[in-house]
Amino acid sequence: MSYRAPVSDIAFTLKHAAGLKNALAEGIYGDLDEETVDSVLAEAGRYASDVIAPLNSVGDKFGTPFKDGTVTTPPGWKKAYTDWAAAGWNGLAAPADWGGQELPHALNAACIEMWNGASMAFGIGPVLTMAAIDALHAYGNDKLKQEYLGKLVSGEWMGTMQLTEPQAGSDVGALRTKAERANGNYRITGSKIFITYGEHDLTDNIIHFVLARLPDAPQGTKGISLFLVPKILPDGSRNDVRAHSVEHKLGIHASPTCTMVYGDRGGAVGFLIGEENKGMACMFTMMNRARLAVGLQGVGIAERATQHALAYARERKQGPASAIIAYPDVRRMLLTMRTLTGAARAICYATGIAIDRSMRAKTDAERKSAHERASLLTPVAKAFSTDIGSEVASLGIQVHGGMGYVEETGAAQHYRDARIAAIYEGTNGIQALDLVTRKVPLEGGKTVNMYIDELRRTVKSVQSSNAPEFGETATRLGEAVDSLECASRWLLAQKASDAALAGATPYLRLFGNTAGGCMLAEEALASLRTGDGTSRSVFARFFAENIAIQASSLERSVTEGAGSFADAQAALAE
Amino acid sequence: MSYRAPVSDIAFTLKHAAGLKNALAEGIYGDLDEETVDSVLAEAGRYASDVIAPLNSVGDKFGTPFKDGTVTTPPGWKKAYTDWAAAGWNGLAAPADWGGQELPHALNAACIEMWNGASMAFGIGPVLTMAAIDALHAYGNDKLKQEYLGKLVSGEWMGTMQLTEPQAGSDVGALRTKAERANGNYRITGSKIFITYGEHDLTDNIIHFVLARLPDAPQGTKGISLFLVPKILPDGSRNDVRAHSVEHKLGIHASPTCTMVYGDRGGAVGFLIGEENKGMACMFTMMNRARLAVGLQGVGIAERATQHALAYARERKQGPASAIIAYPDVRRMLLTMRTLTGAARAICYATGIAIDRSMRAKTDAERKSAHERASLLTPVAKAFSTDIGSEVASLGIQVHGGMGYVEETGAAQHYRDARIAAIYEGTNGIQALDLVTRKVPLEGGKTVNMYIDELRRTVKSVQSSNAPEFGETATRLGEAVDSLECASRWLLAQKASDAALAGATPYLRLFGNTAGGCMLAEEALASLRTGDGTSRSVFARFFAENIAIQASSLERSVTEGAGSFADAQAALAE
Repeated sequence: MSYRAPVSDIAFTLKHAAGLKNALAEGIYGDLDEETVDSVLAEAGRYASDVIAPLNSVGDKFGTPFKDGTVTTPPGWKKAYTDWAAAGWNGLAAPADWGGQELPHALNAACIEMWNGASMAFGIGPVLTMAAIDALHAYGNDKLKQEYLGKLVSGEWMGTMQLTEPQAGSDVGALRTKAERANGNYRITGSKIFITYGEHDLTDNIIHFVLARLPDAPQGTKGISLFLVPKILPDGSRNDVRAHSVEHKLGIHASPTCTMVYGDRGGAVGFLIGEENKGMACMFTMMNRARLAVGLQGVGIAERATQHALAYARERKQGPASAIIAYPDVRRMLLTMRTLTGAARAICYATGIAIDRSMRAKTDAERKSAHERASLLTPVAKAFSTDIGSEVASLGIQVHGGMGYVEETGAAQHYRDARIAAIYEGTNGIQALDLVTRKVPLEGGKTVNMYIDELRRTVKSVQSSNAPEFGETATRLGEAVDSLECASRWLLAQKASDAALAGATPYLRLFGNTAGGCMLAEEALASLRTGDGTSRSVFARFFAENIAIQASSLERSVTEGAGSFADAQAALAE
Repeated sequence: MSYRAPVSDIAFTLKHAAGLKNALAEGIYGDLDEETVDSVLAEAGRYASDVIAPLNSVGDKFGTPFKDGTVTTPPGWKKAYTDWAAAGWNGLAAPADWGGQELPHALNAACIEMWNGASMAFGIGPVLTMAAIDALHAYGNDKLKQEYLGKLVSGEWMGTMQLTEPQAGSDVGALRTKAERANGNYRITGSKIFITYGEHDLTDNIIHFVLARLPDAPQGTKGISLFLVPKILPDGSRNDVRAHSVEHKLGIHASPTCTMVYGDRGGAVGFLIGEENKGMACMFTMMNRARLAVGLQGVGIAERATQHALAYARERKQGPASAIIAYPDVRRMLLTMRTLTGAARAICYATGIAIDRSMRAKTDAERKSAHERASLLTPVAKAFSTDIGSEVASLGIQVHGGMGYVEETGAAQHYRDARIAAIYEGTNGIQALDLVTRKVPLEGGKTVNMYIDELRRTVKSVQSSNAPEFGETATRLGEAVDSLECASRWLLAQKASDAALAGATPYLRLFGNTAGGCMLAEEALASLRTGDGTSRSVFARFFAENIAIQASSLERSVTEGAGSFADAQAALAE
């Protein structure tokens, strides 16, 4: 069972739950219209379904053999990538001045979901190029832009993002890679681990974006600078950087994860991006975009697993029922898969709309407020979506029964692939800490409270719709919003105490469940309003009555759950 | 990081939470004493840790190559198995008349956890032999027992359990393998899939326990008979059964999962076990025992993943903290892992005690009541423990961060291995249906209500202990018991309606969380009582305040969650 991009679902969520329709009507996107959006989605859906999806299993089996410093990508991958770039997909949201199409980030988010639903190992490469484009565009000097930006936008060259070192994972400030000033540029020496697409044969050049430390730099994150280090230098010679090895991973086998070595021959030539010692700000630009994209990987793999399981459940006969989808327990699994996927999708797309508004809204105040909204939602989009990616893929195996455990079926690959997304681009624990310590306190809590008010308006709309098919949706979502509000208020009062940090992960889940549930309800309302004949209220109701109801226990876990943490270390050591 | 069997934890849970201490005091086990129990556990722990655990990674990499109908087990496996059997572990709980030691099933359960914590792929083989011993002992005629039982008990030969066919998975009644009467015995033709250890080189003979259908048998499960089909016949000739292929699976690579073919040369010779057409009763004897054992696999792999993560978290430095265990979010993960594992362990061992009482208690009434208790707990022991096996293994990856996704670390193997246990021996969905449709209604609900009363007594004991370290434990557990009682009452009133079936999975989780939480509290009470100096109250409190609190939402999901199910099929098909 292969993947078919769910284009009409995607379009519906984008327009009605995430707010693209309103944004278009307000003129945020100039003269862009719905028809253009629909045709872009349809075209992306075709490419993802017809060209990329069939490569997913080949990629898993072939992997990325590493020999004499070079990585071979699986059969068919280079052509698929080249054609994909030539069709302009890499530059969909990139600046028009540099060859991009400058279409909405929210639309690009929908496309990123499709590339990754088709193949996570394929989709992650361009995510890093797009992040590199953002950083270079925002912070690079004109010379660097002239040399590199056009080719990164077109996808002729790909980019990488290099933070991690053995002693510096979540703690970026501990990195040791050195940069020394030389001939007006820099020489980079050291090594990096876990570098996605650090070496490969898809493009002739690879542009590495590398965090390193100058000899006279302050300690910690305030002494880090960002450098552009091309694999091939402008004069055509090979730079002093190489892949040393490729990891043997649980999944995304076709995405080469490399250990990189700098400075075998005295140091790789690096070009500074932004100012010395201000590299973290540049890197955060890259990371925020990449975090949303990784959230979309979670959505994509969840969608693929759901399609796979649904097809199996409709076909597989067992016992007196015609097919196993008739069994209530199987329906519970499929409804859980379908609605978690839809909830995560809506959150990610809404984050994309907030990013667009932060760049395109008419007033400074609107742009600032949208920027804060995007900041608030990004960790939720990343962590909630990737957590549910693994959960949905696991349910996908379960629906298949014994067949799900056999690799040939493909369900197991989704399970293996999905698991990375909760780890890279900042583990989900780091996302939860970011949410609790930096995002909830934004503007003294105004940002989160405004968002909660919006969710409450959705609850009111469901209530006043009086549509019987909603069942207890309004009541349950209302309780969830109450819980989110209480937990947020409690966190704001706590500041970043250990008790607050202990509740970070359940708080993020509470946030995701509540926001996702409200957005599914928005979709159902839009479906009733537009009379499109779909049964979205079934999904909104299932989610409210079976998933959003976790709110009260999550709230308690946040506000009352840390009592045993103080003595935990001693107890665990026994 | 390898596995060290947690012998003292295991002994504590067995004695204080599962009730071995009381059972010993009551004389249920004759003159067996605690010292003997302790020394058996210590010896099993040594063998599991020192001999089996080091084979786990080798087994994963080597797998079970299949060539010309034969399966090769990984290097070192045959010696480890042979020595294990020679030490008497296979017959630990088997009848003394046939060479077993007739020790408690609860003690055997603890040992099964250790074999599987050391290596799930190793541990699952003997599970099936033990199940075969039970069926043969209960239903076989004297001649078959003379020929086979002693060698199965000693482990000189291993057994298999053969139900599944391509069209007959969870629906056993649909099986088509044929048995025809011939020369006083039977000839078996057909094929079976997903046969664990169906072919291997650990033992000279393999004794297959095969479900098949006689030509004149009634349809469905009432027309199924159980046959003993040895690989090698008593005259030394090869029987007409062979492995046709071995599956390529997500995990437990060293456990050969075979497709078996019967009747290339006219039919395999089979010997009837029990009566014709009464095979399901025999098979249930095997399955119930195997279900508890698979639950113990979940406990074992969860324990191993917890040890692995804990060691990493205590060693890995990141940021200003000395090691990542100091971070509250990491502690939350480790506490979740540790307490879910402990809860599942206690439930499984308590099931073992109930099995022992069902066989050894002094009066018929006590034995009957214990049998019902074992019947009630078995699906919970299987499904709750294997669900948390996967969840804990997933958290184990997360604690490792990027290192967890690299296969060399070993955390990923636990995640891959763990996933099968929720599927085989009856999927966890089937366990939940069994619980809701057959076990909760036992004796008109008396069985489950008696159990709930017992849980309530634990809550009262925590309350009256007035120990401040319990925090809100009593309150939260009390609420969980209330929820379990309400949900049980609701299910009893519903009978097996679709709405009841829809809530089966959340009900089972509610049951597991509540029972597990109370048993962790029993351990904490025992720890305070005995003054053993451990911090078990930390675990009881964490579980009550962070996991048992899910009870109210699980209860609602059971009693109010099915509203959207009726329209689900149409909605999912859109």
